[in-house]
Amino acid sequence: MGASKGAAPNWIETAPAKGSYRSIFKWGDPHAYKHPNAKLVQLLKETFGLGDDHFKVPVSHGNRPVAHGQPSRVITRDHAAAIARIVGDENVSVDDYDRLKFATGKTLEESLRLRQGEVRAVADLVVHPRHKDDVRRLVGYCDREQIPVYVYGGGSSVNFGLWPSRGGVTLVMGTHMNRVVRLNETNQTVTVQAGIMGPDYEGALNDAPRRYHSRHRYTGGHFPQSFEFSSVGGWVVTLGSGQLSSYYGDACDLVVSQEVVTPVGDLKTLDFPATANGPSVNRMMIGSEGCFGVLVEVTLKIFRCLPENRRYFSFVFPSWTKAVEAGREIAQGQFGMPAVFRISDEEETHIGLKLYGIDGTLMDRLMRLRGFQPMRRCLMIASSEGEKRFAGNVKRCAKRICRRFGGMSLTGYPVRQWEPGRFTDPYLRDDLNDYGILIETLDTAVTWDRLHPLHQGVRRLIKARPETLCMTHASHFYAQGTNLYFIFITRAADIDDFVAFQEKILHAFEQFGGSPTHHHGIGKLFSPWLQPHLGDAQMAVLRALKGHFDPNTIMNPGGQLGLDTGGRHWRDIC
Amino acid sequence: MGASKGAAPNWIETAPAKGSYRSIFKWGDPHAYKHPNAKLVQLLKETFGLGDDHFKVPVSHGNRPVAHGQPSRVITRDHAAAIARIVGDENVSVDDYDRLKFATGKTLEESLRLRQGEVRAVADLVVHPRHKDDVRRLVGYCDREQIPVYVYGGGSSVNFGLWPSRGGVTLVMGTHMNRVVRLNETNQTVTVQAGIMGPDYEGALNDAPRRYHSRHRYTGGHFPQSFEFSSVGGWVVTLGSGQLSSYYGDACDLVVSQEVVTPVGDLKTLDFPATANGPSVNRMMIGSEGCFGVLVEVTLKIFRCLPENRRYFSFVFPSWTKAVEAGREIAQGQFGMPAVFRISDEEETHIGLKLYGIDGTLMDRLMRLRGFQPMRRCLMIASSEGEKRFAGNVKRCAKRICRRFGGMSLTGYPVRQWEPGRFTDPYLRDDLNDYGILIETLDTAVTWDRLHPLHQGVRRLIKARPETLCMTHASHFYAQGTNLYFIFITRAADIDDFVAFQEKILHAFEQFGGSPTHHHGIGKLFSPWLQPHLGDAQMAVLRALKGHFDPNTIMNPGGQLGLDTGGRHWRDIC
Repeated sequence: MGASKGAAPNWIETAPAKGSYRSIFKWGDPHAYKHPNAKLVQLLKETFGLGDDHFKVPVSHGNRPVAHGQPSRVITRDHAAAIARIVGDENVSVDDYDRLKFATGKTLEESLRLRQGEVRAVADLVVHPRHKDDVRRLVGYCDREQIPVYVYGGGSSVNFGLWPSRGGVTLVMGTHMNRVVRLNETNQTVTVQAGIMGPDYEGALNDAPRRYHSRHRYTGGHFPQSFEFSSVGGWVVTLGSGQLSSYYGDACDLVVSQEVVTPVGDLKTLDFPATANGPSVNRMMIGSEGCFGVLVEVTLKIFRCLPENRRYFSFVFPSWTKAVEAGREIAQGQFGMPAVFRISDEEETHIGLKLYGIDGTLMDRLMRLRGFQPMRRCLMIASSEGEKRFAGNVKRCAKRICRRFGGMSLTGYPVRQWEPGRFTDPYLRDDLNDYGILIETLDTAVTWDRLHPLHQGVRRLIKARPETLCMTHASHFYAQGTNLYFIFITRAADIDDFVAFQEKILHAFEQFGGSPTHHHGIGKLFSPWLQPHLGDAQMAVLRALKGHFDPNTIMNPGGQLGLDTGGRHWRDIC
Repeated sequence: MGASKGAAPNWIETAPAKGSYRSIFKWGDPHAYKHPNAKLVQLLKETFGLGDDHFKVPVSHGNRPVAHGQPSRVITRDHAAAIARIVGDENVSVDDYDRLKFATGKTLEESLRLRQGEVRAVADLVVHPRHKDDVRRLVGYCDREQIPVYVYGGGSSVNFGLWPSRGGVTLVMGTHMNRVVRLNETNQTVTVQAGIMGPDYEGALNDAPRRYHSRHRYTGGHFPQSFEFSSVGGWVVTLGSGQLSSYYGDACDLVVSQEVVTPVGDLKTLDFPATANGPSVNRMMIGSEGCFGVLVEVTLKIFRCLPENRRYFSFVFPSWTKAVEAGREIAQGQFGMPAVFRISDEEETHIGLKLYGIDGTLMDRLMRLRGFQPMRRCLMIASSEGEKRFAGNVKRCAKRICRRFGGMSLTGYPVRQWEPGRFTDPYLRDDLNDYGILIETLDTAVTWDRLHPLHQGVRRLIKARPETLCMTHASHFYAQGTNLYFIFITRAADIDDFVAFQEKILHAFEQFGGSPTHHHGIGKLFSPWLQPHLGDAQMAVLRALKGHFDPNTIMNPGGQLGLDTGGRHWRDIC
């Protein structure tokens, strides 16, 4: 398979038109893109039986100006005027574009619909609160007037978490409430406003000696793929995980305390690292996805920033089974955890080696020579961080285990190839979508003992669809289990066909003992699977909390976490 | 100060009389004791101005037979008969002794009152459920009949957690529900019935290859001082911490899933190590102290048992400030945590060196020579565990930090001296109490930045009391803070005098920014401080959960966690 075969596709490289649908659904920086490389294009052509011609003219681009003219569903002129009096005229908008933009997340489905100019739920009014007093007044007013309140952080939701099923008000947290409140070096914590974005957060911590006169540089340790375009508040309320979470912990491990404005008043939790003072209310708010209130401030653990100690390593295994065994043994080895820690199944390895530019190289030939054959071999990429010898020992112990399970070291090369693109893969989607090829991801948590049946069962389902690629990796490790992250590339007759396929995968997660999601949150999209998964008793507890915090059901109503649907499907509420 | 000065006190070495008050309040094994050594006795004599004569005849012993004849407050004969039909006649008791025994924890106050034969709240009926079906039927019956339900695990509560304020039924979990249900080596978890006691739990894990045909030996990693006489269920519902918690985590970190029988039905949580499926209901049950339901089964993380890798180290510092700085630097050093990790303040170091037999030895002389003077010097004792080089590196890094903060290595000797007695110090109390000397402990959680004001403020208060020893250590470390554990030895005019003094210390915890407790739980004793500490908003959340799980307020009613007192003091409910 030659990388240079055929003409290069005619990828779109111009920024979306201002005010266009494309400017809303396109990932990330309007001027940035990341095209599939030649090897991936070749694979797509082979998979879908496409020729060079297919990649000459995009099948859709969504570059038309937004115009939906949806009537306001809840907000009257009196409401709008009252809200403008709270936050100032310049901080409210009833513009069609804003109402759509801040109602939209980053699911494939939303992207596909917007390409067609298909608009469903939008906010009635977009509001940019200036500070927590604004939020208090807004929530109080909306509660009295029974106006739905939705919250927009970075906009990277992949579960319709921002979808304003019932109209009303959407609060945009990042416009003003985006600052570091204080860095506490003694306690190794930082307090930030919820709307601060990933790079601003991490940048402030890295630059702490200059900005806060601290002794050390710090890191937040939280790097989701959406890092550049997601907010710290979003990480917390959706229970996010970063790519280094095996070492630094998931968002729920990082939150020390928080301040949430709820319809029944402010809730502030305390900054003790551990106490025995009854059930942790702090933990109850994490993952509440805007259903209990608006997170306005959060205090997080931070870590010394020690990039100079980072160590990289990669291995190839003869099979997925061996890669999983090595991963589990490392996670249970009691020498600390790698930071980056990913194992890819056979197909993801196959495609990954193309993406990382390893396929066809000397390293590839060496692998084949040593018996690591395509579509059987599986890749592990990893790094370790922390104190120098700690990081060195993690690498040393992990490598010993990898060898024990038949792995061959590939040096740090593959992980270094992966690293620069670790936040930019979502750009690929727009290119593929432009040419009618669909790519989406779904993730699930799993215990070690259910991993293989789940992987096989879900993969079988996905691969049963004609002309469908399915890449799977585990990327967040625990002694008790991991996650499985499925990336599928397919084509669909229409959006409903895609949605039905996606729902089948969710069913398979439940059927084979996975959870609806490991770190994508539930939102509205996955809400039909939450009650079957958690069971009635746990759901009743969540609804009791909902009833406590939000007696008038104004916070993210209409399906979020399945708390208020009364048995209806969230899609039927809109 | 000579260790041999004076005659040895006439310590009681006979086991408590069967059926006596002493057999209830005495710590641990009826036949075991641990007498204060000669140096401690000498210190007590000096502190309280006592001569040898004082230690000849105990001032109280409580060895009289239990007889309180308290009427049943709630349970009628019909109730008792119905309950006996559920569990079998042999599993119910209305015996005076049982009713008192299973109503009693291990506070000093309870011990002092029982020495006087003073009995307050007792259970009406003691029940030993055989399995979770029994518990389901019992809770269902009691809910219908509005009978209070209390739960007895190991009986080591230090906060009146077992105190049956409103009479009713006490369930004794350890009689039958004390087994390992299953060990899952793949997931590195174990599922146990809630009533299993510490040594049985740890013993089963250590012996896993023989009992469960596992590849490895395991440890639970949870060793509270009460280890020998506390139950796994108790650790979980009270948010306990073990002596190695800095490495293995607190009880809340160890619980993977659980099954709780509540008045509104069974609640089972799932065994995923992490998911993003909304707020964690599993976490909400941890620390609920029997107020939401009866924990019947729990699945916990386990760890490979690697005692061969354990490393010991100890340091002496010129001051408490330096010891704290070193402790914080270690906790924030990102090389993993020590397992045992304790720093003692000046006075605890002074007394500890006597208890560990170091005072007056060559090591002591060397310390003094190097400028580490009594009542200024502070001791750190520590160990590390885990994979061999990991454990070695923790020790190496910690030692380097200790030297940086002016510490002098004392080798592993002091920690090895501490270790064999780590579960047996509570035996000392009975000896001291026999001679009218009171010893009690209170612990608080604290962030690093509030540690010194809290330590100084509380210590000032305690030392303002005439003839009072006060030893303080930090023993559970986090990057964000630690705990302070205050041990005070004093005398009191009467029990009320002692109680008033104890309450002053709790006030001081709150005043100086500590929490009511770090790992002793709230129970009823500390409940008056919970609402001021957490604030009304957090308390309202806990009460909402209480209302959900226990609408008829039958679960541990009468003050537990301050959930149902309606503003009254728990002591006024009885």
